Amino acid sequence: MKPFIVPGSGGRHLVEGIAGILGVRARPLAVETFPDGELRPRVGALHGGDVYLVAPTCPPVNERLVELLLLLDACRRAGADRVTAVVPYLGYARQDRRAVAGEALGARAVIDALRATGAQRLVVLDPHSRAVEAMSAVPVETLTAVPLLAAALAGSPEDTVVVAPDLGAVKSAERLGELLRHPVAVVRKTRTSGSSVRALDLVGEVRDRRAVIVDDMISTGATIAAAAELLVAAGARPEVTVAATHGPLTADAIPVLRSAGVRRLLVTDSVPAVAEHPSWVEVRSVVPLLADAIHLLHRNTSV
Amino acid sequence: MKPFIVPGSGGRHLVEGIAGILGVRARPLAVETFPDGELRPRVGALHGGDVYLVAPTCPPVNERLVELLLLLDACRRAGADRVTAVVPYLGYARQDRRAVAGEALGARAVIDALRATGAQRLVVLDPHSRAVEAMSAVPVETLTAVPLLAAALAGSPEDTVVVAPDLGAVKSAERLGELLRHPVAVVRKTRTSGSSVRALDLVGEVRDRRAVIVDDMISTGATIAAAAELLVAAGARPEVTVAATHGPLTADAIPVLRSAGVRRLLVTDSVPAVAEHPSWVEVRSVVPLLADAIHLLHRNTSV
Amino acid sequence: MKPFIVPGSGGRHLVEGIAGILGVRARPLAVETFPDGELRPRVGALHGGDVYLVAPTCPPVNERLVELLLLLDACRRAGADRVTAVVPYLGYARQDRRAVAGEALGARAVIDALRATGAQRLVVLDPHSRAVEAMSAVPVETLTAVPLLAAALAGSPEDTVVVAPDLGAVKSAERLGELLRHPVAVVRKTRTSGSSVRALDLVGEVRDRRAVIVDDMISTGATIAAAAELLVAAGARPEVTVAATHGPLTADAIPVLRSAGVRRLLVTDSVPAVAEHPSWVEVRSVVPLLADAIHLLHRNTSV
Amino acid sequence: MKPFIVPGSGGRHLVEGIAGILGVRARPLAVETFPDGELRPRVGALHGGDVYLVAPTCPPVNERLVELLLLLDACRRAGADRVTAVVPYLGYARQDRRAVAGEALGARAVIDALRATGAQRLVVLDPHSRAVEAMSAVPVETLTAVPLLAAALAGSPEDTVVVAPDLGAVKSAERLGELLRHPVAVVRKTRTSGSSVRALDLVGEVRDRRAVIVDDMISTGATIAAAAELLVAAGARPEVTVAATHGPLTADAIPVLRSAGVRRLLVTDSVPAVAEHPSWVEVRSVVPLLADAIHLLHRNTSV
Amino acid sequence: MKPFIVPGSGGRHLVEGIAGILGVRARPLAVETFPDGELRPRVGALHGGDVYLVAPTCPPVNERLVELLLLLDACRRAGADRVTAVVPYLGYARQDRRAVAGEALGARAVIDALRATGAQRLVVLDPHSRAVEAMSAVPVETLTAVPLLAAALAGSPEDTVVVAPDLGAVKSAERLGELLRHPVAVVRKTRTSGSSVRALDLVGEVRDRRAVIVDDMISTGATIAAAAELLVAAGARPEVTVAATHGPLTADAIPVLRSAGVRRLLVTDSVPAVAEHPSWVEVRSVVPLLADAIHLLHRNTSV
Amino acid sequence: MKPFIVPGSGGRHLVEGIAGILGVRARPLAVETFPDGELRPRVGALHGGDVYLVAPTCPPVNERLVELLLLLDACRRAGADRVTAVVPYLGYARQDRRAVAGEALGARAVIDALRATGAQRLVVLDPHSRAVEAMSAVPVETLTAVPLLAAALAGSPEDTVVVAPDLGAVKSAERLGELLRHPVAVVRKTRTSGSSVRALDLVGEVRDRRAVIVDDMISTGATIAAAAELLVAAGARPEVTVAATHGPLTADAIPVLRSAGVRRLLVTDSVPAVAEHPSWVEVRSVVPLLADAIHLLHRNTSV
Repeated sequence: MKPFIVPGSGGRHLVEGIAGILGVRARPLAVETFPDGELRPRVGALHGGDVYLVAPTCPPVNERLVELLLLLDACRRAGADRVTAVVPYLGYARQDRRAVAGEALGARAVIDALRATGAQRLVVLDPHSRAVEAMSAVPVETLTAVPLLAAALAGSPEDTVVVAPDLGAVKSAERLGELLRHPVAVVRKTRTSGSSVRALDLVGEVRDRRAVIVDDMISTGATIAAAAELLVAAGARPEVTVAATHGPLTADAIPVLRSAGVRRLLVTDSVPAVAEHPSWVEVRSVVPLLADAIHLLHRNTSV
Repeated sequence: MKPFIVPGSGGRHLVEGIAGILGVRARPLAVETFPDGELRPRVGALHGGDVYLVAPTCPPVNERLVELLLLLDACRRAGADRVTAVVPYLGYARQDRRAVAGEALGARAVIDALRATGAQRLVVLDPHSRAVEAMSAVPVETLTAVPLLAAALAGSPEDTVVVAPDLGAVKSAERLGELLRHPVAVVRKTRTSGSSVRALDLVGEVRDRRAVIVDDMISTGATIAAAAELLVAAGARPEVTVAATHGPLTADAIPVLRSAGVRRLLVTDSVPAVAEHPSWVEVRSVVPLLADAIHLLHRNTSV
Repeated sequence: MKPFIVPGSGGRHLVEGIAGILGVRARPLAVETFPDGELRPRVGALHGGDVYLVAPTCPPVNERLVELLLLLDACRRAGADRVTAVVPYLGYARQDRRAVAGEALGARAVIDALRATGAQRLVVLDPHSRAVEAMSAVPVETLTAVPLLAAALAGSPEDTVVVAPDLGAVKSAERLGELLRHPVAVVRKTRTSGSSVRALDLVGEVRDRRAVIVDDMISTGATIAAAAELLVAAGARPEVTVAATHGPLTADAIPVLRSAGVRRLLVTDSVPAVAEHPSWVEVRSVVPLLADAIHLLHRNTSV
Repeated sequence: MKPFIVPGSGGRHLVEGIAGILGVRARPLAVETFPDGELRPRVGALHGGDVYLVAPTCPPVNERLVELLLLLDACRRAGADRVTAVVPYLGYARQDRRAVAGEALGARAVIDALRATGAQRLVVLDPHSRAVEAMSAVPVETLTAVPLLAAALAGSPEDTVVVAPDLGAVKSAERLGELLRHPVAVVRKTRTSGSSVRALDLVGEVRDRRAVIVDDMISTGATIAAAAELLVAAGARPEVTVAATHGPLTADAIPVLRSAGVRRLLVTDSVPAVAEHPSWVEVRSVVPLLADAIHLLHRNTSV
Repeated sequence: MKPFIVPGSGGRHLVEGIAGILGVRARPLAVETFPDGELRPRVGALHGGDVYLVAPTCPPVNERLVELLLLLDACRRAGADRVTAVVPYLGYARQDRRAVAGEALGARAVIDALRATGAQRLVVLDPHSRAVEAMSAVPVETLTAVPLLAAALAGSPEDTVVVAPDLGAVKSAERLGELLRHPVAVVRKTRTSGSSVRALDLVGEVRDRRAVIVDDMISTGATIAAAAELLVAAGARPEVTVAATHGPLTADAIPVLRSAGVRRLLVTDSVPAVAEHPSWVEVRSVVPLLADAIHLLHRNTSV
Repeated sequence: MKPFIVPGSGGRHLVEGIAGILGVRARPLAVETFPDGELRPRVGALHGGDVYLVAPTCPPVNERLVELLLLLDACRRAGADRVTAVVPYLGYARQDRRAVAGEALGARAVIDALRATGAQRLVVLDPHSRAVEAMSAVPVETLTAVPLLAAALAGSPEDTVVVAPDLGAVKSAERLGELLRHPVAVVRKTRTSGSSVRALDLVGEVRDRRAVIVDDMISTGATIAAAAELLVAAGARPEVTVAATHGPLTADAIPVLRSAGVRRLLVTDSVPAVAEHPSWVEVRSVVPLLADAIHLLHRNTSV
C-alpha cells in the first residue's frame, strides 16, 4: 500500500509536491474554524493507512499545535495503522531547558502532548535542540537541510568564511564549512574581565572575507543582524549572506536583516512564507528531502 | 499547608477573589509572548504545594490551551505535590463525539493532553458534555452554576416558563425549573412528516408567559436567538430573559441576542468579559463557588 | 491472511454466520467452569492473527465480562497480532455518569479493564451511551441497527408515528422517523408547576396513529411499557409496535410488554434470546452487519 | 486521619471487627443489583481518605471481581487519596501459568484489571501462587494465616505429622511443621516406571501417626480427600485433621471431606461460610491479622 | 521479509547457526567499551525489520543486562518494526519473590526494564521461575531444553533413576523421567522432628541405580554436588550423571561437581562456556531450538 | 517525619555526612553478590518514608546501574511513600544523541529504566548533558558544583584565565569566570581551510596567564591533557590548574594529567576516589550541597 500524505494547515504548500514525488495524491484536509476560535479538522478515510501528517508548527504556533493534536486524534480514530508526524519546523523546540526555576520544559510538554494524542513517530528538520530526539518516547528521525543550503552556495568564492552567530550554531557552521571547504568563524557573547557587561566577541579570521552566516532558524532576525553588523565592523566584506533552514517567522525579520547589511538570504520552505519575498531572498524547497524521508520510512529503509 | 492558587492568563480575574476567600495570596504568573507567538509562562516556587491552576480555556482558545499545557509542565517540574487544573470553561467540550468519520474527538484529545503534561485532577463548571467525566483518566469534579443563576432569578413572577433551547439543555432547564418552581418548555429541531426540512418545534405551554431560556454557554448567540424568536412568535411575552453559565464568547453575541428580543441576560464570570457589558447584562461571580470547591478539595472533603 | 473469528460464550450464536460470510471457519473456544465458579477459557492457535472476539457482555453480565477479560489476555499471549473486541451489546454502558457522589463510572471502568487486558480496538452496536467512544483510549467503531429495524418496518402505514420513550432515545427515533418518513413524538418525565411530582408527558401528535416505540435496549421492559400505556391513553391506536436493537435482557420483559398493549416486538440477535419467543416477537439478525464491519476493519477500509 | 474501612460484598463479615479494632466505624456500602445483573455499588464520602477496600473475590467469583473493579473506580473518583485493595482470598490466583497454549494467565489478567481501575496497593492472604507479588506493578503485601492455624493446633500430640497434599503446599507444611515442631510428609503425583499412569505417592513416615493436612485453600475438597484416603491406607491413624486458610468454597466440600475420613477441619473466615458448619469444623478469624496489617500500612510501618 | 538476527555480546556464539538455519545473515553488532566501563553498542540498519535480539544475560550479568537495555533502545530508534528479546538464559530469574522484607523482586525489575527500553516480546529457555511469564506485560514464549537433554540420554540403562536436586526441579525431572520412561526421585531439605537443623532428605528408590540429576541451571554446582553425594551415600551407583539446560556459570563449578562424583555432565550452549571443557562434559546446542522458535514467531505460527 | 537516607554501593562515602547534617541516621544497605555476579541488595524498613537513594552510577558503571534498578524496586515494594534517586554522577549521560545511525540513546534508556523500576524524582549534579532534564518524565533537580569549585579557587591571581577544553564546557567556564571575575578562553576542534584534518584551536588570550581548565568530568583525562598542552604551547604559564565536578573515573587519568603539565587538580567527591590521591589533587565535598538539596526537597521548598 502507498503512504497516505495528509497536510496540516501549515503544510499545505508542501504536500502536493511530496505526493507527486511519491506517486500518490495528497489526502484531503478540511478545517472548520468556529466563531469562538475552536478548530474542527476532518481527515478522509485512513483505515489501515501508513499516514504521514505534514504539519510544521510555525506561527500562528498555538493554532498549529492544537490543530496537530486534533489531527493526530482524528487519524488514530479513523483507523490509521501507523501515524508519523512530519513536523519540519517544530515550535517550542527552544524551550529545551529551564533557564530559571518555574519555567516549563516547553519542548518536552509539546512532545508529550503529541504522543498522548497518537503520534507514533516524529520526523523533524534541523530542530533548534538536538535533544528533541532524547526527549521523545517515540522514535524521532532528524533531517538536516544543511546539504541543501550548501548546494545553493556551491561555487562561492575562495575568500568566503562561514560564520556561526552563536555557540548553538557551531555544529551547523562546521558542517557547512566542511561541505564548502571554507573556514569557520564564531560569534559569541562574552564578558570583559572584571565586568559583568556582555559583548559580542568574534573568533576566527574574517577581514576582507565574504561572510556566510548560518543558523537553524530566523525568527525576528535580531541575533543574525547583530552578528552581521559585528562582521562588517571587523572588516568583513560588506555583502553578507545568510543561510538558514527555517525562514523568517516574523514579518519584521526581512527589513531588520536588510538594514544590518544582509544582501542575500537563503532559506527553505519548511514554513510558509510570511510575506512576499524581495528578490534578494531565495527559497529552496525541502519537498524532495521530505519525500525521500517518507519514502524510506514507508519502505522501512533507514533514513 | 494552604493551597496554592495560580492563575492562567484566562483566570486572572478570578484568582484574587478566590485567594481572598481562602486567606492566601494568589501566586504570581508571568507569561512572556515571543514575537513568533510562542509563550513562555513562569510560575513561582511551588515545592510540595497543593496547586490549583485556575485557567479557563476560553478564547483565544488555542493560546489558552497551549498555555495550560505549559503551565502544567511547569508546576510539575517546579515540584508541586499535586496539581489540579481548575478549568471553569473547558474549550473543545462540544467535540465529544464524531458526527462524521474523520473527525477528532476534540474533548478527549484535550483531556489526554492535559493529563500527559501533568494534570492530576480536573475541576470543570457546567461542561458542554457531561461525558467529560468519563473521558478522563484522572478524577473530575463537575460543578454547576445553575443554583447561582436560580438565586439571581429568585422572585420571578408566577407566569414564568423555563425554556431549554435544544435537547442538550433540558437537564439544566429541569434543574432550574425545579429550583424556581416553574414549568419547563423545550425547543427542538424536528421534521414535518414526509419531508426532510427541519424546523424548530416548541414543546410546552408558553403563551402569555415570561420565558427564561437557559443554556450552558453562549457562543455566537444564534441558537438562543432562534429560540427567543420562536417563543415570541408562539405568544410568549416579548421580554425574554436568558441565563447561561458561560457568557458571550464572541463579541457579536450581544447584539444578536438583543435584536432577537432578549431583554435581560444573566451570565457568570467563568470567562473574562469580551467587551463592556450594556446595562441589561448581569454578571454573577463564580468566585465563591470555585473557592468553596478548592477549599473542600484541599481539605479533602467531598465537593 | 483471513481474519480470525473467535466467539465469547455470549457470541456463539453469531460466529458461524459471520465466519460463513467471511469465508472462514470460526475458531474454537473451550471454556471450562470450575466448581467454585472460576472460568478457564482456551482459544486455539492465533499467532500473527487479526483476531475478532465476538463477545456481547449480556446477562449473566459479570460472567461474560470476566470471561472477556480472560479471553483478551489469552489472545494476546497466544500471539495475536491485533485483537478487536466485537461487543455488540456492551454491559454497564448505562453507567456513564455518576448520578450521585460515591458511584462508579461503570462504563469507564469496564472499558479501562478491557484495554488493560489487551483490547486494541472495540466494535459496539447502539451502545446506551455514545460517550463510550470518547471514554476509550483505543479506537471504537460504533455501529447502528436502526437501518435494519427500519427495513423490517418498511411499508408501515402512513398514519404511523415513531415514539421515543425518553429523551435518551430521541436520536434513534429521529433517525428511524427519517428513514420511514414518519413524524416523531417524545415521551418525557416532567413536573407540573409548583409540585415535585414527576409524570410522563407526551410531546407530539399521536391520536389515532399507530405508534412505533424505538429504544436501544429492552431490559425489564418497564420504561417502554409505561410509554405504551401513555400512548394508548392519549388516543393512539391500541396496537403498539416496539423496535429495539438489544432484545429482552430479562425473561419478565415479554409478559410486561404484552400486558401494556404491545402487539409486535422487533429486536435483533445482538444478544442470545433469554427464552422461546412468542410469535409476535420478530428477531432480525445483526450477523451481516457485524460481518461487514469485520470485513472492512480487516481490509482496513473505513466502516 | 484514621483509615477508611470499606467492605466489598464478600467482606461484610470482616469489616465490623476490623473497624472496631482500629477504633473507627466501617464506611457504608450500598450495592444495587439491576434485574439484568448489573451491579451499581456506591461508597460514601472518601475525599482524601486512606481507603482499605476489604473485598475477597470468593464465589460468586465473577460477581465479586466485577464489583471490586467498580468499587476501585468509585473510590478513586470519590477522591480517595490512596486505595488499598485488601483481598484476603484472591480468586483466579491458580491461573498463574499457561498449562497449555491458548489459555489466559488469569491471575495476571485480574491483577492488571485491578490496577487499571485504581488499586494502588494489594494485601493478600496466603495466595495460591506466591508469584502474585511479582505479577503486580503495584506493591503487594502477602500475609499468612499459618501462625494462626498453628496456634489453633498448639498442643497437638507428639506423634503428629504435618502433610502437604501436593508439592504446592510443601512450603506451608514446612512452616506449620516448624511452628509445631512436627515432621512433614508430602503427597505427590508420580508415575510408576515405564508407565504413563499417575498415582499418588507418599513421602515421609506416617504409620500410626496423627496426620494434619495443610493447604492454602479448599475448593471442592477433592485433592485433600484423596490425600486423606492415601494417608489412612498408608497406616496413619484414622482421625485426620485438615487445616486450610481459605475454607470450603463449594458446599460439597464438607461431605466430601467427611467421607474421606476427615474428623476436624480448621479454616479461617477469609471468605464467608458457604453453609452452616457442622461441629467438627472450626473457624478462626483473620480479623485481627487484617486489622493489624491495615494499622501498620496506614501508620506506614512495615507489615 | 526475513527476520533480522542481531546478537548481544553473550549471544555471538549462537547467531551464526541460527541465521544459517533461517537462510539469512546475522546482522552486525559493534560494542565499544569506554575506559570507564560504559558500553556503546551499535546495530546496523533495521528499518521495518522483525528483529530478534539473541542476548543471554549470563555472567558478566550486569554488563550483559545493561547492554541489552541499550540494544533494545537502539533497535527501537533504528526503526525496527517489532523487537523480540531472545534471552535463552535470563539472569536474575531466581529473584522471583522476596525472601525477607526489603529485598527487590529482581526478576520483575529486570523484566520491567526490558519493556521500558523497548522489548515487545520475550523468548526464554527453561527460566528458573515459570512465573516470569506472568511477571511480564509483554508476551513471553517459554522454551524448554528438556527434550534435547532426553535425546542425549536416550538409551540409558533400565536401572536409571532421574533425580530432582530440590523441589524446584521436580517438574523438569518428571518431564525427563516421562520421556526416558525412568522413575523419579527427589532430594529435599527437611527438618528432623523437634529440631531446627535442616538436612537433605531423599525421596524415592535409588539403591544400585544409576542417577541422572536434572536441574535448570548450574551456577557454582554446590546444590548438585550435595545431591550427588547424598545419592552415592544412599547406595546409588557411583557414576552420577548431571543434565542441566544452563551450563556452568562460574568456573569453579566443574571441579566441584567432579569431586562430588559426577562422571558425566550434559549441558547446552545457552550461555557461552566459561572455560575449556574436560572430555566428560558434553554440550548440546540450542541453536536449532532457537532457530525453530524464531522461525515460527516470525511466520506467526504458534511455538 | 525525617527523610530516609539510603546509600547505593557507590554512595557509601556520602551518606554518613548527609545524614549527619540532616540529623538522622543513614539507613542500612546490605548487598550480597552471588558467585555468578548477580546482586541482591536489601534495604531496611521504609514504610511511608520519603526515601533518598544516594547512588552515583560511577565505575563499575553497569554494576552500579543494575544495583540502582534493584534498589528502586526494593524501596517501592518496601512501602516507601516517595523515592528520589540522588545520582550525583549519572553514568551514560554522554550518550544523549545518536552520533551515527544504529546507536542507542543511552542516557534516555537509563532514565527510562530508572523510572520503570520506581524512581519518582531525580537529583543530578552537573550532568554531562543538560538535556537529561528534558529526557525524564519525572522531575529532575539539576545541581551544580561550580560555585564550590569557585570557592576553592577564590583569591586566584588577576592574570588567571578560565579555559573551556571544548565547546560543551563553555557554559561552566562562563559561570566560573563570572564568579571569579576572570576572562574565558575556549579550545575547540577546527579544520584548516580546504583540508579535512582537525586540529585544536584556541580562542581568547592566554599568553603569560595562569590557566584554569574547567570541565564537568574527567574520565581518562585525555581531552584535558590535550588542552593543557595546547595552552602551554600558546604561551600560558606552565602551571595549569584543572577543576572538574566529577573526579577521575579511571586510574590512568592522574599520570596523564601530570605529564601534560597539570600542577593542581580540583575535584569533588561525587564519586569515590579510584586511587590514593597525590598531594596536588584536592577533593572538595559535595556532602553539604546534597544534604541541602535533600533538606529542601523533603521540606518541599524549592532547590
